[in-house]
Amino acid sequence: MNQRQLLQLFEAVQKGKLQPQEAAERLRHLPFEDLGFAKIDHHRLLRQGMPEAVYAPGKTPEQIVKIVRQMLKRSPNLLITRATPAVAARVKRLTKQARFHPLSGAIAIHRDHTQYGKGKILVVSAGSSDIPMAEEALVTADLMGNPVEHLYDVGVAGIHRLLNYREQLASARVIICVAGMEGALPSVVAGLVGAPVIAVPTSVGYGASFGGLTALLAMLNSCASNVAVVNIDNGFGAACFASLVNRL
Amino acid sequence: MNQRQLLQLFEAVQKGKLQPQEAAERLRHLPFEDLGFAKIDHHRLLRQGMPEAVYAPGKTPEQIVKIVRQMLKRSPNLLITRATPAVAARVKRLTKQARFHPLSGAIAIHRDHTQYGKGKILVVSAGSSDIPMAEEALVTADLMGNPVEHLYDVGVAGIHRLLNYREQLASARVIICVAGMEGALPSVVAGLVGAPVIAVPTSVGYGASFGGLTALLAMLNSCASNVAVVNIDNGFGAACFASLVNRL
Amino acid sequence: MNQRQLLQLFEAVQKGKLQPQEAAERLRHLPFEDLGFAKIDHHRLLRQGMPEAVYAPGKTPEQIVKIVRQMLKRSPNLLITRATPAVAARVKRLTKQARFHPLSGAIAIHRDHTQYGKGKILVVSAGSSDIPMAEEALVTADLMGNPVEHLYDVGVAGIHRLLNYREQLASARVIICVAGMEGALPSVVAGLVGAPVIAVPTSVGYGASFGGLTALLAMLNSCASNVAVVNIDNGFGAACFASLVNRL
Amino acid sequence: MNQRQLLQLFEAVQKGKLQPQEAAERLRHLPFEDLGFAKIDHHRLLRQGMPEAVYAPGKTPEQIVKIVRQMLKRSPNLLITRATPAVAARVKRLTKQARFHPLSGAIAIHRDHTQYGKGKILVVSAGSSDIPMAEEALVTADLMGNPVEHLYDVGVAGIHRLLNYREQLASARVIICVAGMEGALPSVVAGLVGAPVIAVPTSVGYGASFGGLTALLAMLNSCASNVAVVNIDNGFGAACFASLVNRL
Amino acid sequence: MNQRQLLQLFEAVQKGKLQPQEAAERLRHLPFEDLGFAKIDHHRLLRQGMPEAVYAPGKTPEQIVKIVRQMLKRSPNLLITRATPAVAARVKRLTKQARFHPLSGAIAIHRDHTQYGKGKILVVSAGSSDIPMAEEALVTADLMGNPVEHLYDVGVAGIHRLLNYREQLASARVIICVAGMEGALPSVVAGLVGAPVIAVPTSVGYGASFGGLTALLAMLNSCASNVAVVNIDNGFGAACFASLVNRL
Amino acid sequence: MNQRQLLQLFEAVQKGKLQPQEAAERLRHLPFEDLGFAKIDHHRLLRQGMPEAVYAPGKTPEQIVKIVRQMLKRSPNLLITRATPAVAARVKRLTKQARFHPLSGAIAIHRDHTQYGKGKILVVSAGSSDIPMAEEALVTADLMGNPVEHLYDVGVAGIHRLLNYREQLASARVIICVAGMEGALPSVVAGLVGAPVIAVPTSVGYGASFGGLTALLAMLNSCASNVAVVNIDNGFGAACFASLVNRL
Amino acid sequence: MNQRQLLQLFEAVQKGKLQPQEAAERLRHLPFEDLGFAKIDHHRLLRQGMPEAVYAPGKTPEQIVKIVRQMLKRSPNLLITRATPAVAARVKRLTKQARFHPLSGAIAIHRDHTQYGKGKILVVSAGSSDIPMAEEALVTADLMGNPVEHLYDVGVAGIHRLLNYREQLASARVIICVAGMEGALPSVVAGLVGAPVIAVPTSVGYGASFGGLTALLAMLNSCASNVAVVNIDNGFGAACFASLVNRL
Amino acid sequence: MNQRQLLQLFEAVQKGKLQPQEAAERLRHLPFEDLGFAKIDHHRLLRQGMPEAVYAPGKTPEQIVKIVRQMLKRSPNLLITRATPAVAARVKRLTKQARFHPLSGAIAIHRDHTQYGKGKILVVSAGSSDIPMAEEALVTADLMGNPVEHLYDVGVAGIHRLLNYREQLASARVIICVAGMEGALPSVVAGLVGAPVIAVPTSVGYGASFGGLTALLAMLNSCASNVAVVNIDNGFGAACFASLVNRL
Repeated sequence: MNQRQLLQLFEAVQKGKLQPQEAAERLRHLPFEDLGFAKIDHHRLLRQGMPEAVYAPGKTPEQIVKIVRQMLKRSPNLLITRATPAVAARVKRLTKQARFHPLSGAIAIHRDHTQYGKGKILVVSAGSSDIPMAEEALVTADLMGNPVEHLYDVGVAGIHRLLNYREQLASARVIICVAGMEGALPSVVAGLVGAPVIAVPTSVGYGASFGGLTALLAMLNSCASNVAVVNIDNGFGAACFASLVNRL
Repeated sequence: MNQRQLLQLFEAVQKGKLQPQEAAERLRHLPFEDLGFAKIDHHRLLRQGMPEAVYAPGKTPEQIVKIVRQMLKRSPNLLITRATPAVAARVKRLTKQARFHPLSGAIAIHRDHTQYGKGKILVVSAGSSDIPMAEEALVTADLMGNPVEHLYDVGVAGIHRLLNYREQLASARVIICVAGMEGALPSVVAGLVGAPVIAVPTSVGYGASFGGLTALLAMLNSCASNVAVVNIDNGFGAACFASLVNRL
Repeated sequence: MNQRQLLQLFEAVQKGKLQPQEAAERLRHLPFEDLGFAKIDHHRLLRQGMPEAVYAPGKTPEQIVKIVRQMLKRSPNLLITRATPAVAARVKRLTKQARFHPLSGAIAIHRDHTQYGKGKILVVSAGSSDIPMAEEALVTADLMGNPVEHLYDVGVAGIHRLLNYREQLASARVIICVAGMEGALPSVVAGLVGAPVIAVPTSVGYGASFGGLTALLAMLNSCASNVAVVNIDNGFGAACFASLVNRL
Repeated sequence: MNQRQLLQLFEAVQKGKLQPQEAAERLRHLPFEDLGFAKIDHHRLLRQGMPEAVYAPGKTPEQIVKIVRQMLKRSPNLLITRATPAVAARVKRLTKQARFHPLSGAIAIHRDHTQYGKGKILVVSAGSSDIPMAEEALVTADLMGNPVEHLYDVGVAGIHRLLNYREQLASARVIICVAGMEGALPSVVAGLVGAPVIAVPTSVGYGASFGGLTALLAMLNSCASNVAVVNIDNGFGAACFASLVNRL
Repeated sequence: MNQRQLLQLFEAVQKGKLQPQEAAERLRHLPFEDLGFAKIDHHRLLRQGMPEAVYAPGKTPEQIVKIVRQMLKRSPNLLITRATPAVAARVKRLTKQARFHPLSGAIAIHRDHTQYGKGKILVVSAGSSDIPMAEEALVTADLMGNPVEHLYDVGVAGIHRLLNYREQLASARVIICVAGMEGALPSVVAGLVGAPVIAVPTSVGYGASFGGLTALLAMLNSCASNVAVVNIDNGFGAACFASLVNRL
Repeated sequence: MNQRQLLQLFEAVQKGKLQPQEAAERLRHLPFEDLGFAKIDHHRLLRQGMPEAVYAPGKTPEQIVKIVRQMLKRSPNLLITRATPAVAARVKRLTKQARFHPLSGAIAIHRDHTQYGKGKILVVSAGSSDIPMAEEALVTADLMGNPVEHLYDVGVAGIHRLLNYREQLASARVIICVAGMEGALPSVVAGLVGAPVIAVPTSVGYGASFGGLTALLAMLNSCASNVAVVNIDNGFGAACFASLVNRL
Repeated sequence: MNQRQLLQLFEAVQKGKLQPQEAAERLRHLPFEDLGFAKIDHHRLLRQGMPEAVYAPGKTPEQIVKIVRQMLKRSPNLLITRATPAVAARVKRLTKQARFHPLSGAIAIHRDHTQYGKGKILVVSAGSSDIPMAEEALVTADLMGNPVEHLYDVGVAGIHRLLNYREQLASARVIICVAGMEGALPSVVAGLVGAPVIAVPTSVGYGASFGGLTALLAMLNSCASNVAVVNIDNGFGAACFASLVNRL
Repeated sequence: MNQRQLLQLFEAVQKGKLQPQEAAERLRHLPFEDLGFAKIDHHRLLRQGMPEAVYAPGKTPEQIVKIVRQMLKRSPNLLITRATPAVAARVKRLTKQARFHPLSGAIAIHRDHTQYGKGKILVVSAGSSDIPMAEEALVTADLMGNPVEHLYDVGVAGIHRLLNYREQLASARVIICVAGMEGALPSVVAGLVGAPVIAVPTSVGYGASFGGLTALLAMLNSCASNVAVVNIDNGFGAACFASLVNRL
């Protein structure tokens, strides 16, 4: 329709109904969308193959079901993050393709299994309490069309365990590294590989972990230069970033 | 040499001079380096084509010259970051190939111009005071074998300026986005492109910018999902990360 | 009455019952209110047409009903902020003119619809989670006699959406801009308009959003010079300030 | 020139040299500036009558002189903030109209004295150490075409002093209130007037003033609802905001 | 008993049963209490007339009743702070002299009404939400034998209200000043009187009040020199300090 | 003079030159000072016997000399805090009665030696680096007419040293306790005495002392109830508060 | 088994089935564990006699029972920290040797009572609210084979109480010192003894105790040089560290 | 002498010159030192073999020389920390035994070489910028009579380098681990050994290292349980603590 509006403008000029001067003036008052800018966004999503995502906290099951129903019309794949089992039950009633991951609260609706990623994304995590955020990253990366693997419970205080998996670490094209407490794992992992490492600090810990602030600051100060950081507990964002990199 | 040590161990077993049991025992006491682990590191550097780098602050010109002289023997390219003009003068006496970038204090010795990057790295910055950190990123990415471009002074309060460069933004394979103060630029840039955006908060600003903390926190909270963050003023680290991604 | 007291003092002097010296002495011991200072305050309220407001948290439904009943005697319009549905039910029983806005918890009793504002106040918000605070601002500004409009869900990571509404942005006399996470919206909006922008950081977000601190700091560091900031989640305060400005 | 480009596009269509379809396509690839968007910005500046401003710290006297020389061609009024006496001497050599305010380091070049403000802007400050930031606000507001007055040294611990000036406070259309240490002045002032109060926290103080953070936080928590806050020491920003309001 | 031990030591020396040298040696190994040091503490309590106090949070009603029963044997007056109504009910069953103050959660057992204070302690508070902490201070000061008065709801944004009570403020020997949000009240009050002002920041507020931190910092930065500060919400501590001062 | 103005008003009424109604109106427009309010302040200073004080940092020697010259006309005693030796030299040329205390940078001009304090103020400090702030407190308390004593270098890690001075501690009417690092001294001292203890945190220390923040927080959390706190390094404020208490 | 793998490699070389060169190559690809590195860890545990430990929060009773059942097969002693009574009931059903400590939530399964510690570990705590963390340290140290004693409720504001126990303090080989609020106890205790003091800050307190941050910072700034610190509330970690030291 | 005072008291009782009752009374008023308590301190120093130490910053070379001269009379070994070369030159003129370590600024006067430590103290550090603090620890531990070794430049991003030194790590009785930036080294080292690890965060780094705060927090959150932490840059304190442990 706005394409049409634009076309009509030029046609009016062509037909002599409108002077060029006046047409240029009108042009400047058309809304942006009419100029096709909104399409950039749409194309971007398609080009990136990113599924749409719903952040569940603060929404009622009813609201989520309503949003999901609409999104499913235009997007084959869909992710709901940090959902409760109650939300999962409601979404499952909507579509049998919904799969709930209880540790992270992620619900994945995975209908288009095209592989976009050119290599493997490996999700590494430090302690067993970091698994929810690691799982969120894993489910997201999978849904975005990446081959994924995980390597859990390889904290830095038992470094030989991590070293045991050097081969697996080396085989990944992109690594997502999830850690709470002192947040040291990304530095060690990044030193063992040549791949980019996306670090996810977690709010796991107590006392002076300050809800993940300590891990966040530690990761930002990594002495390895192949580390970049996302927000605390942001497994979803890390997987989005990793997916983009893995499509290059 | 340590390869030789290991070989000698096996040869001694082969020749019957040593029992397998005893050889296994000795093996466990050899230093790691002798087992070839150090090579991982070396290979990594080669594979990554990363030049060696020297962080100048806290070192005397004499110390830097000494380090540089040694490094130049094994590494064709070399980067010295945050150097003073005095240091630059000394290094230039050592090699005429040294080029000093006064805003960032970077000294680049660029002898091997192999291109490793598969696309263009674009360095975008918000205000004129962010240029030193942007320049550090630019010089580093260039030295690591990437085609580079920059786009300075496109702060979010004059959004039309940034929009004017949509084509250039879209042409980059990886974007490094440098901003101080409210640190909003990476969110806006990331919304305009499909490429990964590496955000560098800068210590530019006063009052409640708290030495870059505000920009750092803002970037970590970006509502765009293709943003990852490095330490405050860490143009060098951003360029290393971007280079890795650009070689994929 | 205290006007009378003051008058009596002068009359006593006039009639010779009191010496000037003694009268001056007495004067200094009269309470301030008697000198008419309290009226400044009263006049201020009238001049500003500001409705009285009750902050609900920490008060029982009974206490609120009691306060509201008293206030309704002297103030045509009344606002209760951050009320629960239970409180709303109780207030509605008191007066049918009470209208509850469930997202923000605002209850507006709007009986005098005089327009004090000379232009339009536009409330802009970034994400759907910021709507409660935006709604609080909207309801407050409306109750204070301003033409109001809103523009929700125009976050900076999809800048073309915001640009689509340039006309609407340009038509506002005052803008209230509500955003959580990286708090970048006010900078972008302020760069598009010539009107004053009042920024409201919200506690929306997780991890390093630190309950709105990140958004607050980002807004204070805005590179646009037509931005001023109020407390986190303070939609009410922003609307009061905007109303004052809009009456000028 | 870009206006011309646009016109030429329409003329080509008018003359039948270009099909409407093709013209629409080309249009979408023209840079924004060519569509006249940059003019919004220019118009905004003119409409706001805001002089251009240079932030001196981090620039050499030579750089500043160069910038100033260029700006003076297109802007009648010009402000340089936080300049040293050395910079002032250089600028004065450039133009005799430059006036240096040593406490704030502001240099004002005031050639167009049009009054844009509709009322008076009053700058109030608490202690004698807050005067530099108050002066920056005063000079800026004056340069932007506002009638200005100031009221210094009226801290809250001697409340009667402030009360003495009730008439003057009441006569202002907009108040800028500058205070360090406990930052209490804006709350008290805002309670005495019906005008909007723009609060500027200063870095004045020691110990637990934490470079102005305490004053900033106190002002954001003001119990008065006609207070909005700008960054620490940001007298310039407060004056810009106040000027906008004063033109309404 | 330990007094006896010490005496016996000297008597043994007196009677020649023990050599001075040996006695001196033994002395050094006696526990401190035996030397009468514990009495300092006891005397201090008596001299100060301070009632014993129990901090209720984290203790079960049973534990509190048990502690109270023991304390009532040796102390005529007793204070339980931050108790729930459930605890109050249990304590009231123990003694009819217990009086519960529901806003602060203070339970006062006041059996000895000796007046120790030489003047009046006035408790001033800013907003209605500060009353719980003000009440804690008031009840404590009363129980410690001071004439007490209070002056609530005299926030700085309505300064004339506070000024109305100048006489009452001037009549106090010690003032306890309770305020949350921007914490400005102590500065203003201290400027109106010659008495020492003990400032109690409260955790009242939201957003950037950071649980009372803002009020605390503001009070520590007071520009009045007759202000000293206690911990956030510490009405009890302020009253203890005020009582000591009021006995001088 | 303003007393006269007020009198003239009443005399005009007495003489029938002015109607009571009109006089009341005029009264409301007289500046506060004219009503004698400023005198409160003046009386307060006299009643408190507090010398005027000048905070030297940020003032040139010339400015200080000028201020001092004026103050010496109306105040017998005068204190300049945190002055450099250069300032001291200039002030000494002005008056031979000036005495410079180089550790604290305090300059005391002590001409009226009236004793206002009813007991002794004891200044206790922890480490030798705390002595400058302790000295500032000591000099101030002395100048304000208090008998003063000091007890330095009695840190809590050598508790027997402090205990050695129990007699001296017990003899003080008010104690000022100065400590940096862990700020534990006030708690221990307060437990040994029945007097009020005013705690002064100092910025002494390194690393996690964070410029005195650690000591400040520790003192605010004192488990002793006879402790109140002033700002970091604020020896002057502590002495003012202590002086007020000591005159009660 | 991996020992066998390694042996087989050497035997293959011995028997001429494998060339040394090839064997060396294979060796580099064996997982670390096969080289016996995991044994370091195992040996470490045995050498240290540290029981395995389970951190209960975030795990369901079922998960804990499952983990405990497995661990009991390989470890004679076992510790579960911060468990609820419900968890304790479940674990007791599993083994009658489980003993629940309700204040700390520690469940100890103590089957091997070998004494590893060479001296006594003394756990000292300041207030009654610190006892849970002190108990966690005590139970842990006991389970790790140390003679343990405790000394509770010896806060610094009643220093004579602590001094009374000098003999007991002096008799400990290692001291664990637990304190919240101002965190001053470790400094005082460390000054009385020659033993290493491990300081445990607790989250006990309110207001400016900031969840234990104040105590933590105070302990890190201790003026005594025989103090080292662990995380807030980390009684377990302090006991592990103390046990290691006590075995030396 | 005070021993004499005590003896005289007993002798007076023995000789009948003083009644026991009266003697007991007098005793309680004798200063502590007279009771021999100061000796605890003295004995402690001797028992610990700790040299006296002078913290140079904030003292003039003259003051340091004066202090050193006095200390050398009673202590064979002496340490001056963080001294400038100028101070070192002055101290060397005083005694030829002074040895200056320019990286840390430590001056050691080592005259008594008794070995008190029972094993080796190993100082491990991460980056070359951490060497000053590592050196301070090394020099201190050496001066306190410990066999010392160091292992520098073994950061976690090149983990194989650290693993190469497993034997050396395992041979230490106590490890001091010095690291800035992300502070991850102590966790990794502690996982490789059974010895207690004392972690020293350093202020090395920039941006979000916040002067060592990040490293400090990371170390406090270590997932290894044989780590305890001292203040930022406190190599001296770490060595004192390590020495105590090494003498057990």
